[in-house]
Amino acid sequence: MYKVPSGISNKHLHVSERDLKILFGENHELTCKKMLKQPGQFACEETVDLAGPKGTLKRVRVLGPVRPETQVELSLTDARALGITAPVRESGKLEGTPGLTLIGPEGTVELDHGVIIALRHVHLSDEEAAEAGVSDKQMIRVKVEGERGLVFDNVLVRAGKAHSAEFHLDTDEGNAAGLDNGVMCELLP
Amino acid sequence: MYKVPSGISNKHLHVSERDLKILFGENHELTCKKMLKQPGQFACEETVDLAGPKGTLKRVRVLGPVRPETQVELSLTDARALGITAPVRESGKLEGTPGLTLIGPEGTVELDHGVIIALRHVHLSDEEAAEAGVSDKQMIRVKVEGERGLVFDNVLVRAGKAHSAEFHLDTDEGNAAGLDNGVMCELLP
Repeated sequence: MYKVPSGISNKHLHVSERDLKILFGENHELTCKKMLKQPGQFACEETVDLAGPKGTLKRVRVLGPVRPETQVELSLTDARALGITAPVRESGKLEGTPGLTLIGPEGTVELDHGVIIALRHVHLSDEEAAEAGVSDKQMIRVKVEGERGLVFDNVLVRAGKAHSAEFHLDTDEGNAAGLDNGVMCELLP
Repeated sequence: MYKVPSGISNKHLHVSERDLKILFGENHELTCKKMLKQPGQFACEETVDLAGPKGTLKRVRVLGPVRPETQVELSLTDARALGITAPVRESGKLEGTPGLTLIGPEGTVELDHGVIIALRHVHLSDEEAAEAGVSDKQMIRVKVEGERGLVFDNVLVRAGKAHSAEFHLDTDEGNAAGLDNGVMCELLP
């Protein structure tokens, strides 16, 4: 039996160099507020407002470092509040996704695509994947114990040297399972 | 294999006769907007605002008919927005639950208990329960197919003549499973 700690992702966004400059100013650099468990990834001091046809979500956190493309990760609850229909997607697979308006302290970006509901996934280093008996891109199940226990199907494995053992899911999924952060969950290959 | 249709419950409340009078006026009676699948149950035209220490949820729907005790059913997402910590409970088991403020057009009720996260459950008539091979108060699992497929553990069976086949879960649970209303879900006794 192989277990990994849960990591529940609240709504957040990754920004491109171009959008960072528009939102926060020409020479702005992202400020690390807290390092995350995935190597090199960090939560930033910076936040932006997200505006959709039905509503606005205020002060949504930026995660660093900058990426080639801006990507907004919402729960289905968030997407409904904004009035957007976003697909469940793996990070970086942004073709055909909807956009929204990003409002920063220095400027506004009309994003024409990049909004996703993140596909739940398990990060593992190469060594951890070998120990767990799973491989990169495999779809597995993950079991959560407790009062709201359940077994998630269709959980993507992301294994490699940029990864560290953690089960990433969104706030809807965390709430449905009654999960807090850092709770050990069993992988079912 | 026995399947029942999903019924996703948004936040709502049931009101006592006493609280109905305070919220909507002395001689007010609940107005049916739409009959629900469970026999005799209906969504009302009436709504109230719910206020907690951290926020307010506007226009939350009342379900009829009136009940002996007022009961507010939220998702964990809703409870966090209000700043309330509510337990997962079976309907009617309200001992030790938190309260909040109900704001109606004619008056305000300071509820001292009655707020729950509803325990997910399957309604079945006696005949349906017999056919499915389950009995009232049994805890079973329910399987949801699809892109966000999963198996919910700890699903309560509520069987009897006041019930009709339907799998009730809240919006967090529905979102986590990528479910719409009326999707057939398999019972796993």
